[in-house]
Amino acid sequence: MTVAVLVLNGPNLNMLGKREPGVYGSKTLAEIEVETKAAGEQLGLAVDFRQSNHEGMLIDWIHEALGRFRGIVINPGAYTHTSIALHDAIRAVGLPTIELHLSNVFAREDFRHHSYVSPVAAGVICGFGAAGYGLALQALQPLVE
Amino acid sequence: MTVAVLVLNGPNLNMLGKREPGVYGSKTLAEIEVETKAAGEQLGLAVDFRQSNHEGMLIDWIHEALGRFRGIVINPGAYTHTSIALHDAIRAVGLPTIELHLSNVFAREDFRHHSYVSPVAAGVICGFGAAGYGLALQALQPLVE
Amino acid sequence: MTVAVLVLNGPNLNMLGKREPGVYGSKTLAEIEVETKAAGEQLGLAVDFRQSNHEGMLIDWIHEALGRFRGIVINPGAYTHTSIALHDAIRAVGLPTIELHLSNVFAREDFRHHSYVSPVAAGVICGFGAAGYGLALQALQPLVE
Amino acid sequence: MTVAVLVLNGPNLNMLGKREPGVYGSKTLAEIEVETKAAGEQLGLAVDFRQSNHEGMLIDWIHEALGRFRGIVINPGAYTHTSIALHDAIRAVGLPTIELHLSNVFAREDFRHHSYVSPVAAGVICGFGAAGYGLALQALQPLVE
Amino acid sequence: MTVAVLVLNGPNLNMLGKREPGVYGSKTLAEIEVETKAAGEQLGLAVDFRQSNHEGMLIDWIHEALGRFRGIVINPGAYTHTSIALHDAIRAVGLPTIELHLSNVFAREDFRHHSYVSPVAAGVICGFGAAGYGLALQALQPLVE
Amino acid sequence: MTVAVLVLNGPNLNMLGKREPGVYGSKTLAEIEVETKAAGEQLGLAVDFRQSNHEGMLIDWIHEALGRFRGIVINPGAYTHTSIALHDAIRAVGLPTIELHLSNVFAREDFRHHSYVSPVAAGVICGFGAAGYGLALQALQPLVE
Amino acid sequence: MTVAVLVLNGPNLNMLGKREPGVYGSKTLAEIEVETKAAGEQLGLAVDFRQSNHEGMLIDWIHEALGRFRGIVINPGAYTHTSIALHDAIRAVGLPTIELHLSNVFAREDFRHHSYVSPVAAGVICGFGAAGYGLALQALQPLVE
Amino acid sequence: MTVAVLVLNGPNLNMLGKREPGVYGSKTLAEIEVETKAAGEQLGLAVDFRQSNHEGMLIDWIHEALGRFRGIVINPGAYTHTSIALHDAIRAVGLPTIELHLSNVFAREDFRHHSYVSPVAAGVICGFGAAGYGLALQALQPLVE
Amino acid sequence: MTVAVLVLNGPNLNMLGKREPGVYGSKTLAEIEVETKAAGEQLGLAVDFRQSNHEGMLIDWIHEALGRFRGIVINPGAYTHTSIALHDAIRAVGLPTIELHLSNVFAREDFRHHSYVSPVAAGVICGFGAAGYGLALQALQPLVE
Amino acid sequence: MTVAVLVLNGPNLNMLGKREPGVYGSKTLAEIEVETKAAGEQLGLAVDFRQSNHEGMLIDWIHEALGRFRGIVINPGAYTHTSIALHDAIRAVGLPTIELHLSNVFAREDFRHHSYVSPVAAGVICGFGAAGYGLALQALQPLVE
Amino acid sequence: MTVAVLVLNGPNLNMLGKREPGVYGSKTLAEIEVETKAAGEQLGLAVDFRQSNHEGMLIDWIHEALGRFRGIVINPGAYTHTSIALHDAIRAVGLPTIELHLSNVFAREDFRHHSYVSPVAAGVICGFGAAGYGLALQALQPLVE
Amino acid sequence: MTVAVLVLNGPNLNMLGKREPGVYGSKTLAEIEVETKAAGEQLGLAVDFRQSNHEGMLIDWIHEALGRFRGIVINPGAYTHTSIALHDAIRAVGLPTIELHLSNVFAREDFRHHSYVSPVAAGVICGFGAAGYGLALQALQPLVE
Repeated sequence: MTVAVLVLNGPNLNMLGKREPGVYGSKTLAEIEVETKAAGEQLGLAVDFRQSNHEGMLIDWIHEALGRFRGIVINPGAYTHTSIALHDAIRAVGLPTIELHLSNVFAREDFRHHSYVSPVAAGVICGFGAAGYGLALQALQPLVE
Repeated sequence: MTVAVLVLNGPNLNMLGKREPGVYGSKTLAEIEVETKAAGEQLGLAVDFRQSNHEGMLIDWIHEALGRFRGIVINPGAYTHTSIALHDAIRAVGLPTIELHLSNVFAREDFRHHSYVSPVAAGVICGFGAAGYGLALQALQPLVE
Repeated sequence: MTVAVLVLNGPNLNMLGKREPGVYGSKTLAEIEVETKAAGEQLGLAVDFRQSNHEGMLIDWIHEALGRFRGIVINPGAYTHTSIALHDAIRAVGLPTIELHLSNVFAREDFRHHSYVSPVAAGVICGFGAAGYGLALQALQPLVE
Repeated sequence: MTVAVLVLNGPNLNMLGKREPGVYGSKTLAEIEVETKAAGEQLGLAVDFRQSNHEGMLIDWIHEALGRFRGIVINPGAYTHTSIALHDAIRAVGLPTIELHLSNVFAREDFRHHSYVSPVAAGVICGFGAAGYGLALQALQPLVE
Repeated sequence: MTVAVLVLNGPNLNMLGKREPGVYGSKTLAEIEVETKAAGEQLGLAVDFRQSNHEGMLIDWIHEALGRFRGIVINPGAYTHTSIALHDAIRAVGLPTIELHLSNVFAREDFRHHSYVSPVAAGVICGFGAAGYGLALQALQPLVE
Repeated sequence: MTVAVLVLNGPNLNMLGKREPGVYGSKTLAEIEVETKAAGEQLGLAVDFRQSNHEGMLIDWIHEALGRFRGIVINPGAYTHTSIALHDAIRAVGLPTIELHLSNVFAREDFRHHSYVSPVAAGVICGFGAAGYGLALQALQPLVE
Repeated sequence: MTVAVLVLNGPNLNMLGKREPGVYGSKTLAEIEVETKAAGEQLGLAVDFRQSNHEGMLIDWIHEALGRFRGIVINPGAYTHTSIALHDAIRAVGLPTIELHLSNVFAREDFRHHSYVSPVAAGVICGFGAAGYGLALQALQPLVE
Repeated sequence: MTVAVLVLNGPNLNMLGKREPGVYGSKTLAEIEVETKAAGEQLGLAVDFRQSNHEGMLIDWIHEALGRFRGIVINPGAYTHTSIALHDAIRAVGLPTIELHLSNVFAREDFRHHSYVSPVAAGVICGFGAAGYGLALQALQPLVE
Repeated sequence: MTVAVLVLNGPNLNMLGKREPGVYGSKTLAEIEVETKAAGEQLGLAVDFRQSNHEGMLIDWIHEALGRFRGIVINPGAYTHTSIALHDAIRAVGLPTIELHLSNVFAREDFRHHSYVSPVAAGVICGFGAAGYGLALQALQPLVE
Repeated sequence: MTVAVLVLNGPNLNMLGKREPGVYGSKTLAEIEVETKAAGEQLGLAVDFRQSNHEGMLIDWIHEALGRFRGIVINPGAYTHTSIALHDAIRAVGLPTIELHLSNVFAREDFRHHSYVSPVAAGVICGFGAAGYGLALQALQPLVE
Repeated sequence: MTVAVLVLNGPNLNMLGKREPGVYGSKTLAEIEVETKAAGEQLGLAVDFRQSNHEGMLIDWIHEALGRFRGIVINPGAYTHTSIALHDAIRAVGLPTIELHLSNVFAREDFRHHSYVSPVAAGVICGFGAAGYGLALQALQPLVE
Repeated sequence: MTVAVLVLNGPNLNMLGKREPGVYGSKTLAEIEVETKAAGEQLGLAVDFRQSNHEGMLIDWIHEALGRFRGIVINPGAYTHTSIALHDAIRAVGLPTIELHLSNVFAREDFRHHSYVSPVAAGVICGFGAAGYGLALQALQPLVE
């Protein structure tokens, strides 16, 4: 029986594969979605995959997850570093949540070294590009069984 | 004659009563709305009570208040600590505004000790749970007569 | 049956109404005492109202409260920002305590933005002038019943 | 032949001319839009002029600019100081972008002295009120030919 | 006709001449009092000269000055660096006040470089030992005539 | 022949044994006084044991010690972290002084990690509860012979 | 009738066009002077164009401006970030002053992000290379009419 | 054909399973070694698994890796936060390196939030306990083929 | 019956008595070892006394203590201020541990004011030279009975 | 017999009396020079009175003082806060030096609160306008006899 | 064939040998010049040796070096720590430059620990007194051949 | 007669010439050792040349130097920035010590700008690659004769 999980993508991730392939790789978010869903299927996870540039929308979706999904993978993009509201939303719903970053944020600008999401995440995966989505689902699976 | 005032609630406050009752109490926001409107009535204040997880929506509503409401009570949630835009919105409309927090934010994490709203608020009330809404209306009343 | 509560006022509050009415209002502390006691009576609270410029005296009084009063309202004046000893005193007696400021300290100098009292207070009320005493008693009442 | 450029306005700029004329001048945003379009025409620039209080909407619009506009003028309002997501959006589309502020932000509060937009902008113009829009278009023009 | 002025000395100044003459000189506070009163006489100033180790007492005395003295010279000792309450007291009474230090506090430990008194003082004199009292009275005189 | 030493206790230590036994132990200050005097006797030290919540009083007592006592043990309580005046008093009298804390202040809140007393103390003992008084006297003894 | 304005260039700007064209462009300061004067003429501004590596000389020239020029454009070079004396000079003469930088200083080293000139400038223009001089004169013109 | 990779464990990891199972899980390092080697085998990776409490030994081993291993997984323990020498060693050998932490270091003490290893790591995996070793090998595999 | 305790000495303590007697006293570490063992005997403590300049060796020894010793006295020397790994080792074995310093580290350079050991120590003794070892054993004894 | 002393004035002080009389008074520097020389004469001090906007010139003059003057009064203007070179110059010549400020710099912007001159000055006088020159000479006199 | 190099000395170095021999040695700058020229000759370097207390003059000289000298040795004195303009000048001319200090600036006051010159210097030599000039020329030689 | 000196190399310096020649040059440490010994011979210095990645080993070697060597040259590698224990070791043995860095550490990452070794070194040489060893011996020679 499959378990429903929510995969959320934050601001600017809809631009993947369109610009800066050196930093973020050449896959589009649509291609990553296909791969992630396939990876989920193999792990018995039904993936709902979404993206928004709106902080409020990401919060709305996290709230919706309560009762409908058993875990969350979130790539919060730049809201990682500025959104206490995302922090509160994740804590409020209390679902196991994996924080994901495509690039190694710690090797970039100083203002990307702090995350408001990490303290409320079960764990963090960063620096592995599109492959990170599959790793995140693997990491999430034992937490949602 | 009643005076119209706006009571705004920021991100995650729609989750009240659903999770973390130890921190935020067990009342839902809907229950608080009922109580707040009743308290307003006794003070001659007609309360319009709203909630949004979207920073931009809160700003839109504050702008709308100009000419339609005589004062504002705002529980800005996590935007308290990150939103200079809310600060500017409150200053721009120039209505008397009471900042409200359910929990004692000063006894929580360091990143909740600073407020961008406080410098443009008439006053601050925090730590009294749902009872804070009634106190805020009382504090607001003499400023909007 | 009335409940005894202690209302403490810190340094320089004896000067209220004598100087800087623009910041602190024009009421004297004696007038505020009368109003506060009246407000207490309506809430079933017997108010003992005191002022001292001496940090040590405020601490002595907080200690005395143990067993004699059921709750404290304290306007710590400038000791708010410098006195860890007051923090310890309030924590030591463990009575519900409301922190009160006449002016909105967050809209004043930076050195007034930090409070050692807030982490050990049940809640904070600031910016409403003399009206704050009444609000503080209302906020205290459910905590001392 | 005219070149299409996007002029974006961030939070609270819809309030221009309605409040605080001492700081921001007395022109409304609608009046500035008319002037900006006229100034653009003289420079061979077709101006699309927009405003939103929503950070996510500004990001959506910047993404849209890719392929439709040749350059951007942005007055990010308070998001200047808090939005790493805007920074990423501007960098992601890679269009020449001019940062614009009506008031001299460096002569205001400390929290307005840092900009996340500046490092990804071609240049900055601030302090000239509504006249800044015309200067920004002039500065942008050689970069979009 | 003589003008009454108050000369206040803060904590540990009663120890002058007894220890650390290398830092503070070899005169006792009693000797300085005599010299200061003599210097005052020549300037038409009747000097009331006091010392206390109690912050609260210094505040009480400053309050008393209202109506009884026309100006204050204060050597706040270590309270210079820690007492916001003294700052508030001096501001509250609004009398011209000269801040005085025997030693050059700026050439000593870092924690002696900041003064809460300076922003509310008319001026500061430091580093001239006992001679500073005479200079302070001279500086005060034109402000109290 | 016995040597007279002064044992000083700062703010809130009179509350020992009355509240928060988990942090400070269950002995009262009176019980500690008895034990400390007994321990002193065995070391040939006549202990004068005092407590005050008043910073000024502690300073007065330190001054008095000059010529009457040969060494000081001081548990400065919260004044440890805020009182430069205590620092100056201890330096002014120049007697060997042991700083004592019942709890391990370095394992508590950040604002308890700095001591103004330590730089003028011969040594520091902290974390051993009431037993610390005996250790402090032992440490002091060779310095006052 | 033309209005006299002063255009000042600070340290190292005499090296323009000689080194680091990637950062500062390939025009020499002499070429920029010609263009700036021409641009000034079209705006009815008679430009006096000067450069010095000496902070004191720039201050002397700003003082001279009083009574002889109606406005100032200043590219303070590295003195932007270190000279409080320039700040004071501009404030002292009280003429409308535009701060100008050839490169986008906010995208360079951290120590170039702070300006002592900005708080006393009417506005700031940066990042547009030699074209910035013309923009600055345009921005200055309405302020000196 | 298998590829040789080095898995390094830093200080105190030899204590795994012996103390603090709540933080680090109940598996011993020996058990993790067995699992990690098995996981490596499935991925075609021959794992050499080592632990040392000596910073210098970890550096020696990283140097040895040059020419003998194709990639490194390192759980640097507390040296994560203090060792620039580890940073230099990893950079010097230039092998793809995955940084691994058993617990979510970002949800622990502040001094565990900074990593000197991250800027020279390909990516980071943290918070998944013993399962992290398998994830790290998966993440490493495509980088060493 | 005697109880086995471990006394550890960190870097440079082997140099005691050889250089800088003004700071550290004139006793050699060998002499201190003899005295410490004798003091231990009187308290029923069998002291194993060791020194190493290697951080990793100190950690190895702390691990060894588990099951073999009932408590630890550690003079961590300079590793006090830099070693999170020592902090983790002490926490991992969970034995009562006394932190010891010969000199008053708080009266020395700023970089000696912070200790990573203190938060995991039962208590701290500093400033009493070689006598500190005996005091530390006394303080440790009641914790290991 | 008169003693030669040097009175130095730093940047922008030549503008005294011309602008900002509210801050600096209405006397010109020439008028102050006359008064200062007269005051010097009464004290037996022959005053050489100079002003420069050039940091280097002030340093040259301080060097010249060696052997020609017995003491220095310096109003370093904005160089107070930025010039380590002035600090070094004053220290190098080793003459008694009084630091002087017309306004109370501690009540102005934060960047005026630190002085590089103070640690090498005998004392500081600030906040008394033109009267400060006379006070400074009085304070200097006993140091140069 | 000799290569021309420029040796620059900043503020207060003209005072060498006249004051503070304990810090800077007893040689005068003239004596050092003779030795430096002799050392240069042996290395095939024709040394032009200059000193100025004026930051602007040092910058002028660095600019002059372009085309006339092949390398620079600079002892920037106190401008080391404050002059971004010197930094820019050295970078602008792009000649190999050795930074030189007579004393070990890192063992002096904190404000001497940062250098704006170091990031644009080829290397740094400090702490060897007059001997440093010869070492600097030796270090420069291979860079200017 | 030759004088024995110790040349110590810290972590990762054994990798010289193997990786990152752009930063550290292409010579191996063995080649540098040969050159350094030859340079020593010419100066009458018998060089003992060592390298270790272990902080503790470097400290052991510094201790050994007492009585066996007359001076030390140390390239502490990354321990420069983190090891207070090295600082203490150098101070403890009291031998003249030259700090050496191959690259200009001040032009690299911020965390390489601070050195714990510098305050206890006679002088510092950095940025001259392998040539620095010869310069360091020259600088050391007059200190060990």
